[in-house]
Amino acid sequence: MRASRYLIATQKETPADAEIISHQLMLRAGMIRKLAAGLYTWLPMGLRTLRKVERIVREEMDKSGAQEVLMPAVQPAELWEESGRWTQYGGELLRMKDRHGRDFCFGPTHEEVITDLIRNEISSYKELPANFYQVQTKFRDERRPRFGVMRAREFLMKDAYSFHLNAESLNETYELMHRTYCAIFDRFGLDYRAVQADSGAIGGSASHEFHVLASSGEDDIVFSTGSDYAANIEKAETVAPSGTRPAPVEEMKEVATPDQKTIDAVSQLLGIDATRTVKTLLVKAEADEDGSSGLVALVLRGDHTLNEIKAENLAGVAEPLTMATDEEIEQAVGCKPGSIGPVNLNVPVIVDRSAAHLADFVCGANREGFHLTGVNWERDAALERVEDLRNVVEGDPSPDGKGTLEIRRGIEVGHIFKLGNKYSTAMNATVLDENGKTVIMDMGCYGLGVSRVVAAAIEQNHDENGIIWPDAIAPFQVAIVTLNAHKSPTVAEAGEKLYEQLRQAGYDVLLDDRKERPGVKFADMELIGIPHRFVVSERGLAAGTLEYKGRKDAEKQDVPVAEALPFLVNASPRKGL
Amino acid sequence: MRASRYLIATQKETPADAEIISHQLMLRAGMIRKLAAGLYTWLPMGLRTLRKVERIVREEMDKSGAQEVLMPAVQPAELWEESGRWTQYGGELLRMKDRHGRDFCFGPTHEEVITDLIRNEISSYKELPANFYQVQTKFRDERRPRFGVMRAREFLMKDAYSFHLNAESLNETYELMHRTYCAIFDRFGLDYRAVQADSGAIGGSASHEFHVLASSGEDDIVFSTGSDYAANIEKAETVAPSGTRPAPVEEMKEVATPDQKTIDAVSQLLGIDATRTVKTLLVKAEADEDGSSGLVALVLRGDHTLNEIKAENLAGVAEPLTMATDEEIEQAVGCKPGSIGPVNLNVPVIVDRSAAHLADFVCGANREGFHLTGVNWERDAALERVEDLRNVVEGDPSPDGKGTLEIRRGIEVGHIFKLGNKYSTAMNATVLDENGKTVIMDMGCYGLGVSRVVAAAIEQNHDENGIIWPDAIAPFQVAIVTLNAHKSPTVAEAGEKLYEQLRQAGYDVLLDDRKERPGVKFADMELIGIPHRFVVSERGLAAGTLEYKGRKDAEKQDVPVAEALPFLVNASPRKGL
Repeated sequence: MRASRYLIATQKETPADAEIISHQLMLRAGMIRKLAAGLYTWLPMGLRTLRKVERIVREEMDKSGAQEVLMPAVQPAELWEESGRWTQYGGELLRMKDRHGRDFCFGPTHEEVITDLIRNEISSYKELPANFYQVQTKFRDERRPRFGVMRAREFLMKDAYSFHLNAESLNETYELMHRTYCAIFDRFGLDYRAVQADSGAIGGSASHEFHVLASSGEDDIVFSTGSDYAANIEKAETVAPSGTRPAPVEEMKEVATPDQKTIDAVSQLLGIDATRTVKTLLVKAEADEDGSSGLVALVLRGDHTLNEIKAENLAGVAEPLTMATDEEIEQAVGCKPGSIGPVNLNVPVIVDRSAAHLADFVCGANREGFHLTGVNWERDAALERVEDLRNVVEGDPSPDGKGTLEIRRGIEVGHIFKLGNKYSTAMNATVLDENGKTVIMDMGCYGLGVSRVVAAAIEQNHDENGIIWPDAIAPFQVAIVTLNAHKSPTVAEAGEKLYEQLRQAGYDVLLDDRKERPGVKFADMELIGIPHRFVVSERGLAAGTLEYKGRKDAEKQDVPVAEALPFLVNASPRKGL
Repeated sequence: MRASRYLIATQKETPADAEIISHQLMLRAGMIRKLAAGLYTWLPMGLRTLRKVERIVREEMDKSGAQEVLMPAVQPAELWEESGRWTQYGGELLRMKDRHGRDFCFGPTHEEVITDLIRNEISSYKELPANFYQVQTKFRDERRPRFGVMRAREFLMKDAYSFHLNAESLNETYELMHRTYCAIFDRFGLDYRAVQADSGAIGGSASHEFHVLASSGEDDIVFSTGSDYAANIEKAETVAPSGTRPAPVEEMKEVATPDQKTIDAVSQLLGIDATRTVKTLLVKAEADEDGSSGLVALVLRGDHTLNEIKAENLAGVAEPLTMATDEEIEQAVGCKPGSIGPVNLNVPVIVDRSAAHLADFVCGANREGFHLTGVNWERDAALERVEDLRNVVEGDPSPDGKGTLEIRRGIEVGHIFKLGNKYSTAMNATVLDENGKTVIMDMGCYGLGVSRVVAAAIEQNHDENGIIWPDAIAPFQVAIVTLNAHKSPTVAEAGEKLYEQLRQAGYDVLLDDRKERPGVKFADMELIGIPHRFVVSERGLAAGTLEYKGRKDAEKQDVPVAEALPFLVNASPRKGL
């Protein structure tokens, strides 16, 4: 492609409303433009990368034996009523009425449509397993769309749905999809992790998320230093402390802690470590049969944080997890949130396993401005229910017993689920088995955020000058920058020659033949993030060389003109995408 | 692809609600399934063809220098208010409100979005001309969606928009797009015509439609036997009759024509040819300044039909063309529609050029049950306004003076427009010219119905056994049918070997390895329409041959196993799409 005939829509200024680096760089590099909140046009430069991501996904899905289909974006309400999600799905479902007043939505996902299709098309176990995917535009009406295409309302997604006679077959396809996703992310050239995840609202028995690692990621993901164990922090189990709880040494005493409302403040006042304290959180209990609900106390070691997913998955705790208000706490306990403790507490208490292992600890006295020291379980406070309540922390032992845990930030770009029979039961999707018996199919579903991958790749790969694309998903693999070609026919000719040579070798080449100053061209090519750059100049040609610089390289180097192609093949063996 | 691992969803029965052959065959061949009125899922077999169409379009658009973008499907109302179309566009615009109550639509077209983008991105004549295209899902909320993907509500379209400093530049890109469309339809392997067309509601100064010829087409298209002239019948001009009008011979007489309400009936009763009669149609006149509107009479030769587009484009005639009701006619003229005539008619009269050339003709007497014979213009009825009002008929002289006209049926699958400055003026899309002066850009737009092409190809190419795909857009180019392979390892092995050989040569091959009876397999491959078929059987292999049959061939032929590939290369040189 010749830059003079291409929309190079780079910008110097960082756009004011772009909060994260990928959003800023996608706007500045001329990859996207905002049409309205959460709605983006992909400019030519951005679309090239999007299409490369899409192509890799499609090739690997095809290789796995999945069959591509294309379902409508607009879906009739009837199917969503059948699955129960027309009412369950909240404000993110963009609903509309057609000219005849019938209800439709712009599909955020396609479980209903594919289940309806397959219950009509597949009737025998002989046709199973089968896995269908599409690369399709979806819509989620986010309350606060932001971060550019990272959390847009309209986005491009690869979604796949598999159908099975039994759980064993589902497990096989699930593992195949796990391997396929790894192959996809390997080909992207991104640093990623597959982690165990909570199945959440989609339902099902198991799921894994695929995260692109980036310090700006919104998720904490956890790995073992000594094994393959990896999980979203929401899902990561803690290991129960080993050994028995130390015996009490101190007597329980009430101490004044006026105006000390946080664990840190109390620890400092008392001159102890936060690990010797507990904090007590009051949350809504699960509703009784008559609909009324009280409170439940959750007790954690002072330095630990509550894992909300673990808590709301517990029997007796309301889902979604709802913290008690200050008023509810005052009414139930008679003090403010900062002074609650498990001693003589008149609500059910659930204690985290680490907190349950403490002796001679400090906690709130259930009296405003006072704490208790030297508190011991059993002796001073009953220990009726002990559970895993907290988030793991760095250095915790791995749940598989091998190594300790590290925590990194990740951006979720893929999620695979064993759905089981949630949708197939609701929609009566059955086949006849070997014995002619009608059985409900098992299902899996496999999502991959195609447009989100583009943003995540940038979050992971950038510097102060702009984007640093991995070769496989760069809009162009190679930039050829000609200097003052409008004044020098030699330079123009050498640029054209190199352009043709590299293109014919299968590279995606951008020839920057614009009548711009060299500094402007260099800055644009760096901002756009093209992995390999050759500069064609009169001075270089006089010496028979081109100047080469890899986007990640600190230094430039001279390459003889005749060596340019073999040099590039060596620097970027993955050619001709 | 192995058929045993592929969704071959063929059906024997013709679906009851499918009115046209392409809709029937797409359902029967397992290409599409209906989700709801006008909403179709593309099954794997159908999607393969859709993607090939899409790919050819993309390759030729890229070759033309157009740049691919991707705009959102969901568009904010504000832009449509700016162009004036939020209120003008009727019930086909699917409107919706997001969770914050803001108005959006599911875009049926993208003039507003692209004009908004380009007015922000392009500021100088140096960046012009520029042509941007996308292949994107669109929605038109048809009142009566039908004919499958031929007139679906959700459909896939290639739309392109070009921007220019002046009309000359627009003309150049328009001609380039015309050539590009010809290249695209040539590659599809379809019989098509580019014809002059009316610009209609999109506006602009010139347009051409691209029609796939098929007897089931909804449009009449007109060509000259002696030149390149081709036009939609809506647009095709008639040539004014040559010579002067014959002088009157007969006297005007009133004759009783009781109960003769049609031209045919009157002609028969009077023993004359319909070419000697005129018919008079009353339509609504253009509204006056005070909003009131009367009627206008349109007079045509009895054997001619009214061209509604020509009529409504005339000054003085209401647009859209609206026929007067029987009540309005009785009130204005005092008789029923079948008895109107131009003699002493008390509304303005517009006479078609052929009707104006008649002498001694027959017309209604403006009196119930009576006609006039021997009527002559000027003498009996004023001839104040003569226009081109009628559709051309076969045998008419070509408007360019070369040859006569033929009429064929066509399916409109592409439409290119010189938009001029309609949208750029409404939305103030300007650039600075060479002199630093702000000028409104000129625009062109170029649509191609990607999903519609699939249906149109079938309307043109089918027989009683099913679809007959052109090689370039067939879901698979070659079928290999193995007979009783589950019982014969020799056949299974030979089938696999041929499959690998043809695939490696770049062909899209479907190996029908299903455990089905030969008759079922043959019928499916014919129904699906795969252009080339090899049969692998024990008997054939014993003689060292495969059986070959082209989908259009009447006869099968034996081909030595070793000759299969060169034979296929000869039969289908366009390989490796």
